Amino acid sequence: MKKTVTAFAPATVANVSCGFDILGFAIDQMGDKVTVTPNDLQQLRVIGIIGDGGKLPLEPDKNTCSVAIQAMLDHLESNQGIDIYLEKGLPLGSGMGSSAASAAAALVAANELLGNPYDKIGLVPFAMEAECIACGSAHADNVAPSILGGFVLIRDYHPLDIIPLPVPQNLFCTLVHPHIELRTADSRSVLRKQLSLKEAVMQSGNIAGFIAALYENDLALLGRSLKDVIAEPSRALLIPGFYELRSGIQFLGALGSGISGSGPTIFILSPDQKTAEAVGGKAKEVFAQIGLGVDVFVSEVNKRGAFVI
Amino acid sequence: MKKTVTAFAPATVANVSCGFDILGFAIDQMGDKVTVTPNDLQQLRVIGIIGDGGKLPLEPDKNTCSVAIQAMLDHLESNQGIDIYLEKGLPLGSGMGSSAASAAAALVAANELLGNPYDKIGLVPFAMEAECIACGSAHADNVAPSILGGFVLIRDYHPLDIIPLPVPQNLFCTLVHPHIELRTADSRSVLRKQLSLKEAVMQSGNIAGFIAALYENDLALLGRSLKDVIAEPSRALLIPGFYELRSGIQFLGALGSGISGSGPTIFILSPDQKTAEAVGGKAKEVFAQIGLGVDVFVSEVNKRGAFVI
Repeated sequence: MKKTVTAFAPATVANVSCGFDILGFAIDQMGDKVTVTPNDLQQLRVIGIIGDGGKLPLEPDKNTCSVAIQAMLDHLESNQGIDIYLEKGLPLGSGMGSSAASAAAALVAANELLGNPYDKIGLVPFAMEAECIACGSAHADNVAPSILGGFVLIRDYHPLDIIPLPVPQNLFCTLVHPHIELRTADSRSVLRKQLSLKEAVMQSGNIAGFIAALYENDLALLGRSLKDVIAEPSRALLIPGFYELRSGIQFLGALGSGISGSGPTIFILSPDQKTAEAVGGKAKEVFAQIGLGVDVFVSEVNKRGAFVI
Repeated sequence: MKKTVTAFAPATVANVSCGFDILGFAIDQMGDKVTVTPNDLQQLRVIGIIGDGGKLPLEPDKNTCSVAIQAMLDHLESNQGIDIYLEKGLPLGSGMGSSAASAAAALVAANELLGNPYDKIGLVPFAMEAECIACGSAHADNVAPSILGGFVLIRDYHPLDIIPLPVPQNLFCTLVHPHIELRTADSRSVLRKQLSLKEAVMQSGNIAGFIAALYENDLALLGRSLKDVIAEPSRALLIPGFYELRSGIQFLGALGSGISGSGPTIFILSPDQKTAEAVGGKAKEVFAQIGLGVDVFVSEVNKRGAFVI
């Protein structure tokens, strides 16, 4: 067995507009790192976390890294002891798949340590158990793209049906993270429980167009399809600056925008890096005007997913 | 100008299960033929219809062929007189896109007569005007596949956004047309006006999977995605034998089934002709048992659409 393995897993955007609750994609460069080392104690230990401001739990049954690895060990019927060291690169509770990136990196590292008993897609269910601890629901739309990279469709959960999708050339994402706290519970509570038939049909049409656009490498169609009539109308109201930003960037050439995960981060897709950078610059202006701090990241859509360093 | 042109346009399946209201596809062989001949009267005349049992109107402002051609002539600002002769190959009110096929054939024939001022996709809006006369709404999910062939997505109507999609190899369709009359108004009135958020998400996931399956040529995924939680649960109750048929064919290897258009025709997709034929045979048995007459058609999914003969 190797003595130590470190893996990186990227940030992700879930609830991709017309892909509410079924579609996520991965971001380049930004993400979490997890290092795993075998121990002889037959137990999982989270021995250190940096970059979280002391907010994340070290208890193995509460930390997403250890919960994910425990789920894998249980499936393997293994009692291998592992020490876990987590280096957070992502802000917590931002809607960028922070907990998912930790779980994904932990699993890819531990899988390598154990001689790769699973392929990448086989790791997703273990990461979902960690999401259950972190967010209260075993959703896969962050963990699957964080592990696999690219755009990933979660067609169904019963049984789990994960469909990796192609990534168009030169697709760039600007992430705009306003410095407000938005509790997931609040973000959920504003969702309408009932929709009109017309709204459901519009959402269907747009996600169908979006999927076709990914395969056709048709960025104009992708942009036309990037509309969320389900969640965004309610959730955008919780994010100061959302509509001001959309209005501010409308002539810059971006393809479209939406709420990343359950917010408050906003994602904007662009057909090239230059546009994505211009969008980021405008975002800083818009949020300066409303007096709210903001972090802006520009990245190509990640095709690689989590990997061993 | 040519002296006479005849065109054929195929039957179509609209409301393709998870593609309720946004997706249609074309059937091979079955369809309508329209012959057009110029006249010097500067008017459209429907000079004959066969195969309709005398049910279709000859008045130019009520017949789908003449309404479609008139819309095209208006757009061209032409007062060309045309005589129209319609040979119905499709049963009326069956849910197989009968009115759409007549309009599609009329337009393709008249377009050829006039020297092809439009490409195929450009004919769709004219055919939609005919659908408005025939069905009360300007839907495109029958006319677009009848003209273009294959699977066609109608992403949006405002403005119209028509996306032709790829057709997997060896995809066969069995159409089962029970001899009952199902009024479109009744079929519409049973649709729920409100859906749960969960249902809308399921429909989104399935149409997304279906579109990916068309591009990936993945018939297993296509089958898993072929579920309609929006319309089918209500509409299937209006079609005697619907669930008996689904149950009867479950071990024959078909990919899935649904209601064609607003019914009563049922479509079943299969991965090869042999399976599609076996499904057809079983359908005859099932409907014989419940004492209801039925017509069964087996066809490959049509990739060509309407054409000049």
